[in-house]
Amino acid sequence: MRSSKLVSAVVVIGAVAAGVALGQANNWYPSRWGAADQRGAANRITAAKVLEAKNLMTRGTVYQLGRVYEAAMPLFGTRHFSLRIPQTYGPLGTNRTMYHDEVVSAEIGQVGTQFDGLGHIGVGDLFYNGNDRGEFSKPDGLTKLGVENVGALVTRGVLVDVAAFKGVARLDGGYEITRADLTGALERQRTEVRAGDIVLVHTGWGSLWGVDNAAFNAAAPGVGLEAAEYLVEREVVLVGSDTWATEVVPNPNPDLQFPVHQLLIPRNGIYIFENLLTEELARDRVYEFAFFFAPLKLKGATGSPGNPLAIR
Amino acid sequence: MRSSKLVSAVVVIGAVAAGVALGQANNWYPSRWGAADQRGAANRITAAKVLEAKNLMTRGTVYQLGRVYEAAMPLFGTRHFSLRIPQTYGPLGTNRTMYHDEVVSAEIGQVGTQFDGLGHIGVGDLFYNGNDRGEFSKPDGLTKLGVENVGALVTRGVLVDVAAFKGVARLDGGYEITRADLTGALERQRTEVRAGDIVLVHTGWGSLWGVDNAAFNAAAPGVGLEAAEYLVEREVVLVGSDTWATEVVPNPNPDLQFPVHQLLIPRNGIYIFENLLTEELARDRVYEFAFFFAPLKLKGATGSPGNPLAIR
Amino acid sequence: MRSSKLVSAVVVIGAVAAGVALGQANNWYPSRWGAADQRGAANRITAAKVLEAKNLMTRGTVYQLGRVYEAAMPLFGTRHFSLRIPQTYGPLGTNRTMYHDEVVSAEIGQVGTQFDGLGHIGVGDLFYNGNDRGEFSKPDGLTKLGVENVGALVTRGVLVDVAAFKGVARLDGGYEITRADLTGALERQRTEVRAGDIVLVHTGWGSLWGVDNAAFNAAAPGVGLEAAEYLVEREVVLVGSDTWATEVVPNPNPDLQFPVHQLLIPRNGIYIFENLLTEELARDRVYEFAFFFAPLKLKGATGSPGNPLAIR
Amino acid sequence: MRSSKLVSAVVVIGAVAAGVALGQANNWYPSRWGAADQRGAANRITAAKVLEAKNLMTRGTVYQLGRVYEAAMPLFGTRHFSLRIPQTYGPLGTNRTMYHDEVVSAEIGQVGTQFDGLGHIGVGDLFYNGNDRGEFSKPDGLTKLGVENVGALVTRGVLVDVAAFKGVARLDGGYEITRADLTGALERQRTEVRAGDIVLVHTGWGSLWGVDNAAFNAAAPGVGLEAAEYLVEREVVLVGSDTWATEVVPNPNPDLQFPVHQLLIPRNGIYIFENLLTEELARDRVYEFAFFFAPLKLKGATGSPGNPLAIR
Repeated sequence: MRSSKLVSAVVVIGAVAAGVALGQANNWYPSRWGAADQRGAANRITAAKVLEAKNLMTRGTVYQLGRVYEAAMPLFGTRHFSLRIPQTYGPLGTNRTMYHDEVVSAEIGQVGTQFDGLGHIGVGDLFYNGNDRGEFSKPDGLTKLGVENVGALVTRGVLVDVAAFKGVARLDGGYEITRADLTGALERQRTEVRAGDIVLVHTGWGSLWGVDNAAFNAAAPGVGLEAAEYLVEREVVLVGSDTWATEVVPNPNPDLQFPVHQLLIPRNGIYIFENLLTEELARDRVYEFAFFFAPLKLKGATGSPGNPLAIR
Repeated sequence: MRSSKLVSAVVVIGAVAAGVALGQANNWYPSRWGAADQRGAANRITAAKVLEAKNLMTRGTVYQLGRVYEAAMPLFGTRHFSLRIPQTYGPLGTNRTMYHDEVVSAEIGQVGTQFDGLGHIGVGDLFYNGNDRGEFSKPDGLTKLGVENVGALVTRGVLVDVAAFKGVARLDGGYEITRADLTGALERQRTEVRAGDIVLVHTGWGSLWGVDNAAFNAAAPGVGLEAAEYLVEREVVLVGSDTWATEVVPNPNPDLQFPVHQLLIPRNGIYIFENLLTEELARDRVYEFAFFFAPLKLKGATGSPGNPLAIR
Repeated sequence: MRSSKLVSAVVVIGAVAAGVALGQANNWYPSRWGAADQRGAANRITAAKVLEAKNLMTRGTVYQLGRVYEAAMPLFGTRHFSLRIPQTYGPLGTNRTMYHDEVVSAEIGQVGTQFDGLGHIGVGDLFYNGNDRGEFSKPDGLTKLGVENVGALVTRGVLVDVAAFKGVARLDGGYEITRADLTGALERQRTEVRAGDIVLVHTGWGSLWGVDNAAFNAAAPGVGLEAAEYLVEREVVLVGSDTWATEVVPNPNPDLQFPVHQLLIPRNGIYIFENLLTEELARDRVYEFAFFFAPLKLKGATGSPGNPLAIR
Repeated sequence: MRSSKLVSAVVVIGAVAAGVALGQANNWYPSRWGAADQRGAANRITAAKVLEAKNLMTRGTVYQLGRVYEAAMPLFGTRHFSLRIPQTYGPLGTNRTMYHDEVVSAEIGQVGTQFDGLGHIGVGDLFYNGNDRGEFSKPDGLTKLGVENVGALVTRGVLVDVAAFKGVARLDGGYEITRADLTGALERQRTEVRAGDIVLVHTGWGSLWGVDNAAFNAAAPGVGLEAAEYLVEREVVLVGSDTWATEVVPNPNPDLQFPVHQLLIPRNGIYIFENLLTEELARDRVYEFAFFFAPLKLKGATGSPGNPLAIR
């Protein structure tokens, strides 16, 4: 799949200033992968991309990108996370086996480090590939676009350290990362973004995690619409970051709510990964790496928790 | 780390027939990784093992080893799995963002495809490294041995197709896999097990999954104590399979309950991974592969769900 | 409130055979208690009804009508009930206080003994008082018709032992209780139904509870549409029974699904109480009693668990 | 049952100052209702008490004493309350039935308005009737002392308005209600406490509920040890209040943690009911009333949510 052949098919939002259009245009489906597709940009991952990733594993250093899940983590809105260890089971047998398990209640695909699937975000009632929520959003699980369809994301990963490019440890809440920020940071790093890559944006916002949860949740620096369009043009698979939204919150256009989510997920089938631990990659200036993640196959779920790996 | 240097330190259960001893001997702690260790055999994974894994990635073929999580899957005892999609949130903004999440309640680290951490299994009240459950097993999470301590398991993986070695599609429930079965199957496959590897045992039992859950849960073929000792001697990191217990159930010695869990987890710090989808590896005769898994960092949990990857 | 004045206002389903009409007619709102009402037939309970109930308390005998909640009870569809006792908290202080609590996950208002509120059942998208589900059914709770609005139901209660009237210990699954069954049983008992009463129908079906859950769930004897219309005419507050649906399942008209629920709840604001323990009342021939129940004030919930009391 | 016969059996804590004794003395079991009893002071409720309650129902006025359950309510420690409305089910049949339910996860017997059962509180490892927690506290529910054993509590209720007696709208956090406060308030009200009654203490603390949850949880006025002994001597069934602990927090003796819970529940089988809505009773000076409550029969639970009724 050559990216040059596909540029013309990229969905471009003509007049971003006219934000209303984001909620109304319907020129974005069927998807480039067909009207029945449920995997979106995961289709960009090929054996060649897997081997491209492999070749970045030169040191054998593994970075865990997932944060700790606990009740004390920042949570969006009214979501919750509860984990309890029940009374110990056993002893069983003359060998006296005892065992523990844990009972967890949570919006498990949408708390903490979280991977947003194609059933998570709609443009009004329409989701990826024009699926109407009335048709597939059922109480016992989504009957289409469930995260179990995504499959493994093993590919080249790129870290874009926008905080370093801007010369700060942490971008401000509400700072909109622009196309020029992305391209400037990539140039500074001497990194390119290729079709089929996943891209992680380091903002430094993660340093508030567990330190000042209220501040962490109140706003976020992040990718703006123009920067997101650049990533769409680059034909990436996934955009992630160390914030809870990946996109800028609040959006500079006060009429818009999570427009980058709409641009990436339903309109272009590109996944979002939030609350990633990007600090160590930034510290070690690991701007290219092999990326490994496969969502939990939670049938009919909108997302997945995770502990993705970046390997050099 | 040369296995020859460590053989004398391997915990050997002298008289297996005297099963009572399994529940009483206390010669197994502190662990070889020190009295404070919380990672067990994950310590065997080095950058060299990561690069050894890398070199097995010759084709770029990715196998997902995790099964689908759903309420209809086989569940152990009184465990449950509930997933619901709440009413849709939104629309928000002039761009009319709508979104879904999912609320899940489950013994999330011990249902479906599940990774058993060091806090899961005890020999009476004593767990890995001699930790007494009264000291670390707290209602809000284990204060030691939680699965968040494990870290990434990226290493060489080996599939042992015992079903093929025995010439059947599916071993019988209660069939005890012996040391000779393991060594015979490995010889047939021309595969060796090395220190720091993870080992998956294919029994064919997974073909009952979702087809006859009652039969699936009623018994299982699996590794017996002698076979498990062989794997301990081989200094593996993890033993997994396509059954709910990995070990044989019921144990041929009717006085024993899950003695292989005790031998591997608390006594030797070796992890267990249950309900893996090994069918495709067996079908493709992929006996060596790069293995990628990192538990969800569920603070204080006994295990983790997962969708581990095997790559050739 | 004289019933004679209100008969003309009673919603009568003209042609029951034309079941389609049940899902389309819109002559049932606003409710007789006004377009803004959220309490339905609970409005029928007055201080006079409370005192009428009081006067039935002649013996001081209390009957608990609630069943035991446990994972082993019959559950509708994919609902679940999970209760776990976490590890013990404490000891605290020199007085060494220890304590337990329980973590429960369930469709708590719609499992086991369950009270159906006005937000539970719709005629298409329309619920009680013509409320459109798109307006009030929100992920964090119903914004109208939540069970917290119901208030206390303290009034005269009547048991109608239809099983005894038909001369059987247990009516058959699918048996449709007719208007003549109700009036015949009441005459046999020498009991009358008055405005503002709650009415419990004893079918004997509860004898399958926990004995043969599959049979219990597969069908149920219960009130048919004509019998339900009789109860509407009688201006009752609530209809309950010892089955999971109170109404007959399957309905004799195979095109209809839970039409009695629609007739009672959205069309007439009359509550339903399912899986009640009516055996002891029937055994003791307690056909009139003081009834006491108040739903848990679960904000925005569709129903409530309960252990209502019948006192003589 | 004459209280004069039982006074000598009342457990008296001789030297309160020697708080350590509270955690060590074992002269409090077997209970006066026998070594096998699981109902404690609920045994004090007789048909005569039910009829005594009945005679207080002179006006037909019903007070609901339960608060609204919602995620925004004050919660103890790390407890949680989550309620979600799943996507609507249906439409079913030609009559187009649609329905909602709710999925709730919570420490349901120990959040909000909560009834503490006999399995909730221990003196070290010993609970009511000397039951050792190792024997009955199991992961799937308590095998003894579960709240399903309590049964209906229909009896005379007394409100003691200590705030009014002290001439304030709200007692201060940490204010210890003394024996003299109780007897003084009762004398002022011209109310007596009789054997088999339930007693509710109005402190005014409930006015912080939902207004300043942090302040509400940080402390509480409440019954001290001497006042609790008075209630033990009076042979009550239950002590409740408008605070989260009913007893004073922190205890004036800083070495003691929840000693009144221990005195009432394990030592004397007397129940506690927390976070009751006593404001309306106090406002209307309803000091005597008929009380109606039966715990949800949650098998093996430590407590129950509720919406108890007080009727005049």
